[in-house]
Amino acid sequence: MTGDLRVTEALADFLAASRWEDIPAAVRHEGVRSLLNFVGGALGGCQDEAISLAIRVLLPYFGGSQATIIGRRERPDALNAAFLNAVSANVLECDDTHLATVIHPAAPVAPGLLALAEQRRVSGAALVHALILGVEAECRIGLGVMPTHYRRGWHITATCGIFGAAASAGKLLGLDKRRMAWALGHAATQSAGLVESLGSMSKSIGVGNAAKNGLAAALFAEAGFTAADRAIEGRYGFAPVTSDSVNFGAITDRLGESWEILANAYKPYPCGVVLFPVIDACLELRARHAPAPEHIAQIVVRGHPLLRERADRPAVETGREAKVSIQHSVAAALLHGAAGLAQYEDACVADPAVRALRARVAVEEDEGIPVESAQVTLRLDDRSSFTEHVRHGRGTPGRPMSETELDAKVRDLAAFGAPEIEAPSLIAALRAIETAPDVAAILRMTVPAR
Amino acid sequence: MTGDLRVTEALADFLAASRWEDIPAAVRHEGVRSLLNFVGGALGGCQDEAISLAIRVLLPYFGGSQATIIGRRERPDALNAAFLNAVSANVLECDDTHLATVIHPAAPVAPGLLALAEQRRVSGAALVHALILGVEAECRIGLGVMPTHYRRGWHITATCGIFGAAASAGKLLGLDKRRMAWALGHAATQSAGLVESLGSMSKSIGVGNAAKNGLAAALFAEAGFTAADRAIEGRYGFAPVTSDSVNFGAITDRLGESWEILANAYKPYPCGVVLFPVIDACLELRARHAPAPEHIAQIVVRGHPLLRERADRPAVETGREAKVSIQHSVAAALLHGAAGLAQYEDACVADPAVRALRARVAVEEDEGIPVESAQVTLRLDDRSSFTEHVRHGRGTPGRPMSETELDAKVRDLAAFGAPEIEAPSLIAALRAIETAPDVAAILRMTVPAR
Repeated sequence: MTGDLRVTEALADFLAASRWEDIPAAVRHEGVRSLLNFVGGALGGCQDEAISLAIRVLLPYFGGSQATIIGRRERPDALNAAFLNAVSANVLECDDTHLATVIHPAAPVAPGLLALAEQRRVSGAALVHALILGVEAECRIGLGVMPTHYRRGWHITATCGIFGAAASAGKLLGLDKRRMAWALGHAATQSAGLVESLGSMSKSIGVGNAAKNGLAAALFAEAGFTAADRAIEGRYGFAPVTSDSVNFGAITDRLGESWEILANAYKPYPCGVVLFPVIDACLELRARHAPAPEHIAQIVVRGHPLLRERADRPAVETGREAKVSIQHSVAAALLHGAAGLAQYEDACVADPAVRALRARVAVEEDEGIPVESAQVTLRLDDRSSFTEHVRHGRGTPGRPMSETELDAKVRDLAAFGAPEIEAPSLIAALRAIETAPDVAAILRMTVPAR
Repeated sequence: MTGDLRVTEALADFLAASRWEDIPAAVRHEGVRSLLNFVGGALGGCQDEAISLAIRVLLPYFGGSQATIIGRRERPDALNAAFLNAVSANVLECDDTHLATVIHPAAPVAPGLLALAEQRRVSGAALVHALILGVEAECRIGLGVMPTHYRRGWHITATCGIFGAAASAGKLLGLDKRRMAWALGHAATQSAGLVESLGSMSKSIGVGNAAKNGLAAALFAEAGFTAADRAIEGRYGFAPVTSDSVNFGAITDRLGESWEILANAYKPYPCGVVLFPVIDACLELRARHAPAPEHIAQIVVRGHPLLRERADRPAVETGREAKVSIQHSVAAALLHGAAGLAQYEDACVADPAVRALRARVAVEEDEGIPVESAQVTLRLDDRSSFTEHVRHGRGTPGRPMSETELDAKVRDLAAFGAPEIEAPSLIAALRAIETAPDVAAILRMTVPAR
């Protein structure tokens, strides 16, 4: 299988050689959108209990006051800041999503770059360039190990995200191709994160580590700390160890010609991406038929096997678990006509009406339904039934978020988690980041005044 | 496979409930030996290039001066100290070894305990107790996922070691059973480390992270950070995700009645444990037959398939790689009549005589030979041949290191890496640790005076 193939080296060569001038305008623009969505997610999540607890745990070990925690006033060292910003950005499930791999690309990649931008002067173009390359690395490696990697139980945002974090930080540090390969090697041996952790705070440790340890991977490589030459493709390398369906061509073919960030989408609902078409269908059914909850006999959700694998959770107890629950999402969407941050708070999960309705949700698998689609059938107690089939969930590439919708999402998130900051100016600065001489000035706008 | 089985919970219940009074004297004694061997390894390795580089990389991110780096004067925060002491203890390959899993138990477990012992007063008995429990957790989990876990490419000292680090730190923190289960859950989702990294500095990142992230897992759990309930046995939990031969009984059967640390062994040679019987055979062949190197036509090494999987490296370039090379180890042992630290320095690897001889080494697999055994046949150019069969390599449980040999090993390691410290007093203090009121006093003895 592996022979003379040089996957790690080919990827490292591409990353080290890439120039900003080579990046097409549409790709650059998607890099800016991804960063904007990331900052929004981090502002929204920065007061979450997981963040407050994590800060309480890590505070005694913080190094010097080096880097910003988006939306907050504490200043840890760069590595801890990378951890915490990745947790914030991902904790509300408002991420961007690369649908073919279900990777949330920005959460592991952006935090290390922002932390470095406070240690040395970094231009907006350099940061967006590094972010685009990080997304490229993690998504391509993800494509190279899917679908069995995820199916086996690897939480791919963490396990592949660390490669993106290492690649992007390595680019910002100006690593040559040999050191870039080492950075990827250090990422490989630190890659971790289990699907089992989803629905508990533990998931955040996986995502935070991807950002922090990926940044560390690049810093170790910069110092000359050596790694395996074939950390991805070797007999005991990342790909064969974590996947039974390795496709190295997905990692190395057409590097610099096709760009994975163009397949990036932005979450309209703060929950697992597989739930989007289900929620769309429920909202549509409610709008059209206004079913009285007490007359709903059954709700049948039909979708790709990944939908059930990821989110078949009939008896959740917390908002955190509800974000990966079909049953809760369906019940809340049908009852409230919405699936926003309020529908994923503990109070909504505890609501007896929601709990009564979620018990009537049945989930069916259908290999023939793509993961971005779903079908929901409402069966009423008078034997009437209504079916809604959604081909492309809102916020997937088939039905992308507009610029206006994205700005509105970021404003809503900022209002939720960090109402003191000036969201409109921050959004404007991020939209103009390609010409910004120093990213640190933008980061300061994410910190609330005393 | 998983059904109603409660593996994580059963293990956490045992760990939380265990009392020092329940630990048999022989088990306690092996805990002390393991700790002594660990401190020796860390003293020997503390000047290694990997440590110096790692300190250079991490120094800008060090938190407050909280904890000792064994054998050195820098004082980082507890988490970074845990990382660095694990790296030191493992970098020369002088570890203890649990042969059934090939886990080096102490390197991931001891560093977090020592770091905690400088943050709060910890008695020697409490520390040894926690260490024994950590070893129990990591080795049982290792047994539960072997042999396919390792065969697939997981570096088990790192991937299972993190459970030992979390369990032992959790014990020292006094976690109740619920929080202990969360600590194991946070360990599960951070578990990482690839066999591909062996032979490069990158291996040290895996081992260091096991110690550091395992300690963090316990600290997060202490603060109430939640984890999956069934992080080990769940459908997407650690065991099914990383193994195709899960045996949960090995994790939960006879907890508190049998003790894995009694199967712990101490390395007599600073290299991969699978090489020990091979080296023993070579030293014996040399002592008996004194073959002239120029007359050696071929050396045939025959052993368990794991020997080849781990250490078939004919063309190594550095001492670090040589530690997992059958070919180098055989050539050096036959030429020098020794396999000590000097035989695994870069100079020995570059020696033309060693390189010429290693080219004549052939490796054969034999499923019928246990991993602690090996057979080496020397074929001379006059067609005569000699075969040596070693049943139990030196330093394996069948041929354990005596107390005198272990003390001598620790003195040699201290002389190699930290000649300024008072090794005999330190060894005496560690041998008496079960009655020591405060471990921090012993740690101070590992730091060289200015």
